[in-house]
Amino acid sequence: MAQLRAFDSAREQGREIPEIVCFEKQSDWGGQWNFNWRTGIDAHGEPVHSSMYRNLWSNGPKEALEFAEYTFDEHFGRPISSYPPRAVLWDYISGRAEQSDVKKHVRFSTAVRWVQYNAETETFTVTVEDLVARTTESSEFDHVIVGSGHFSFPNVPDFTGIETFPGTLRHAHDFRGAESLADKDVLLIGASYSAEDIGIQAYKMGARSVTLSYRTKPMGFDWPEDMTEVPLIERFDGSVAHFVDGTSKRFDAVILCTGYLHHYPYLPSDLSLDSPNNLYPDTLYRGVVSEANNKLFYLGAQDQWFTFNMFDAQAWYVRDVILGDAKLPDAAAQRADIDRWLTRFRALEDSNAEVRFQADYIRDLIEQSDYPMFDLDEVVRIFLEWKKDKKENILTYRDAVYPSVMTGTMSAVHHTPWLQELDDSLDRYLGHPKTDVIKVIVSGGKAPSSV
Amino acid sequence: MAQLRAFDSAREQGREIPEIVCFEKQSDWGGQWNFNWRTGIDAHGEPVHSSMYRNLWSNGPKEALEFAEYTFDEHFGRPISSYPPRAVLWDYISGRAEQSDVKKHVRFSTAVRWVQYNAETETFTVTVEDLVARTTESSEFDHVIVGSGHFSFPNVPDFTGIETFPGTLRHAHDFRGAESLADKDVLLIGASYSAEDIGIQAYKMGARSVTLSYRTKPMGFDWPEDMTEVPLIERFDGSVAHFVDGTSKRFDAVILCTGYLHHYPYLPSDLSLDSPNNLYPDTLYRGVVSEANNKLFYLGAQDQWFTFNMFDAQAWYVRDVILGDAKLPDAAAQRADIDRWLTRFRALEDSNAEVRFQADYIRDLIEQSDYPMFDLDEVVRIFLEWKKDKKENILTYRDAVYPSVMTGTMSAVHHTPWLQELDDSLDRYLGHPKTDVIKVIVSGGKAPSSV
Repeated sequence: MAQLRAFDSAREQGREIPEIVCFEKQSDWGGQWNFNWRTGIDAHGEPVHSSMYRNLWSNGPKEALEFAEYTFDEHFGRPISSYPPRAVLWDYISGRAEQSDVKKHVRFSTAVRWVQYNAETETFTVTVEDLVARTTESSEFDHVIVGSGHFSFPNVPDFTGIETFPGTLRHAHDFRGAESLADKDVLLIGASYSAEDIGIQAYKMGARSVTLSYRTKPMGFDWPEDMTEVPLIERFDGSVAHFVDGTSKRFDAVILCTGYLHHYPYLPSDLSLDSPNNLYPDTLYRGVVSEANNKLFYLGAQDQWFTFNMFDAQAWYVRDVILGDAKLPDAAAQRADIDRWLTRFRALEDSNAEVRFQADYIRDLIEQSDYPMFDLDEVVRIFLEWKKDKKENILTYRDAVYPSVMTGTMSAVHHTPWLQELDDSLDRYLGHPKTDVIKVIVSGGKAPSSV
Repeated sequence: MAQLRAFDSAREQGREIPEIVCFEKQSDWGGQWNFNWRTGIDAHGEPVHSSMYRNLWSNGPKEALEFAEYTFDEHFGRPISSYPPRAVLWDYISGRAEQSDVKKHVRFSTAVRWVQYNAETETFTVTVEDLVARTTESSEFDHVIVGSGHFSFPNVPDFTGIETFPGTLRHAHDFRGAESLADKDVLLIGASYSAEDIGIQAYKMGARSVTLSYRTKPMGFDWPEDMTEVPLIERFDGSVAHFVDGTSKRFDAVILCTGYLHHYPYLPSDLSLDSPNNLYPDTLYRGVVSEANNKLFYLGAQDQWFTFNMFDAQAWYVRDVILGDAKLPDAAAQRADIDRWLTRFRALEDSNAEVRFQADYIRDLIEQSDYPMFDLDEVVRIFLEWKKDKKENILTYRDAVYPSVMTGTMSAVHHTPWLQELDDSLDRYLGHPKTDVIKVIVSGGKAPSSV
């Protein structure tokens, strides 16, 4: 969506833009933010893309992800809170894209089956399947931009005896809501965002106990009673998990919060990004241009503190490379540049340094294009505040508010604290909680400016 | 596995056989019978193949699926019961294949990404990914045999309001055991084998109630108390399902037993079989040769009363077509033959007629090759007996025994009735139930002939 908008922004300025075709497996856009009740395999036999669940609210302040060229103020016409639920964020990104006439470029319900580069013609043959018509076809492209993300294919390690676990067992990718964890003893394996958020979701929905198993180190939040961190699992024996510290416990449910794979089954291995999830995947010049083939690009392939506005910075730069406005240096210079960033990345001492590193990466990108520069230091400050808020109280950090870096507007305190809010719908979020009578009319993703 | 064995059988008779490469996504063979605790996406980012669950026992008598050229007597060296659990059947099919030196042809953990037919060279370019090495490569083949089955990609219909259902929700493909359904109100949507067997699994494991929702007509078994058939769902409203007869009920768990898709994401649409699940998929001559391209074959693409021995009959015939021993008629004659079978198939009046139809289909196939003919009428008789047994008592039919059609050996009555047996392991099945001390030593899939 960022890439479509980037090209349309150039078109608005009178530039001629190339023919664009966007193949999207799902029936609508929004990617990760396009919630799907299905798990595993979708209606057309394809892997379900989104890892979204009911009651997912942004786990970072919206002020850190705001588009520099399309603000929350512009979209909602009034201040909203700093941590909106999924439907609200989907509405925001969809609303921006709807303002440009770019949906015509998207072929929905169309899966990319195979991409082949032809050295003679310097083009890619892209073979796709229309999942509704059940027809395959191939066409030629000068450039390919991979925007399928890297939080859709679960990383699922094995554990001794796990096949004997009789309770419910799934990866976070297939988690759709914590309601059924009420009164259950729940084990979450992992110590990153999925474990943290599904853990407090389970707590919020009344789990009897929540146990979080870490491999390297605990998250160390000030967890409420009945939430505990334990080290790695040594083995399962039926419903009992044994941990490497010698303790054990019986569980009703296990959720593997063990991350995701870079996985691009439609790409040959010489073009397919193969990286752990980190802030600077090797082989990508400026984090987006494939070193193996400079006509191939990846958006959002990094681990992410910044999200939407980083994708924009990337998309604007990729656009300019394709339009010829940004010139790529030769292979040796690309490698030297990647190595410089990798050296810096590998020396990062803590997560605060990571945030600053990613801000610098984005600053460098924005300097290459006409994407509006914004106060990245202020975003870093907000990220560090957010981390402090979480450290202070993992259950209430979403009730904090921040000012917009783009407009200065102070966020609204939401009508209901996150821990008490059980309805994540757009209507409920934008509506008045004290009455069921007034419903906000939302048309085309834009609320009236006064309600 | 049947195809590998078919070629090896010709090799044993001194025939020269072509170079064979078998690409298998999983790390071991056995396909559907290769149990995997994972659901959704596997360790390499690929859709999980097997729909197998703990405590799955054959739901048809083994006498109906026995290989004509490798009997249960030969494998186990003593009579076993008529309805073995999954590990025992895997052992049997694996044991047959291990007797031939065919594993060398299999490239495990290798997914087929794309198959392209080249009209000029009359060959297929097959592009695969080694999922461990993460490398892709392409090679040329004269023939392609599709043996990936059609019970791996779930058919998942939508239901109004299902996204609000807060309990556990999955398709039968992702069901791994009924233990966690104890004390739960369980809804199964569907009226075929998955619903029937997962229903009685849930009952066996102590579900509070089991409700089976049918679209067309109920299965009509003499269900035990707390198992009920109801018509189709009209909508979900949170945890409550409303049925089209106006009744409604609250559920803890929903399992979609709604069947599977013919789905071959590695094939272009002009070669990909597109059919409902039925006994005679159109466009396949003799049920195996692709009408669109006579160098492409499908094994087991039919709905199945017969299984292992039908796959053998197909594999032996496909082998003979490839070796040139069986001649294909011209396109018009192929079409006429398909139409003759389709006419007969469409006129079938009931499921008993279906069984006879499939027996006739297999007879016709076996007559084309040197696969040992067996008494198909006797197998039909066993199938009809089995259906009567199920009708009589759906909870005890697996305790019945039948004589082998191949050897005449009467099956052994198993040491434990199915309803009481909670351990589906090979050891337990072959061992003596009264003691935990004696363990049967199983080496290479062959039990000693006396234990």
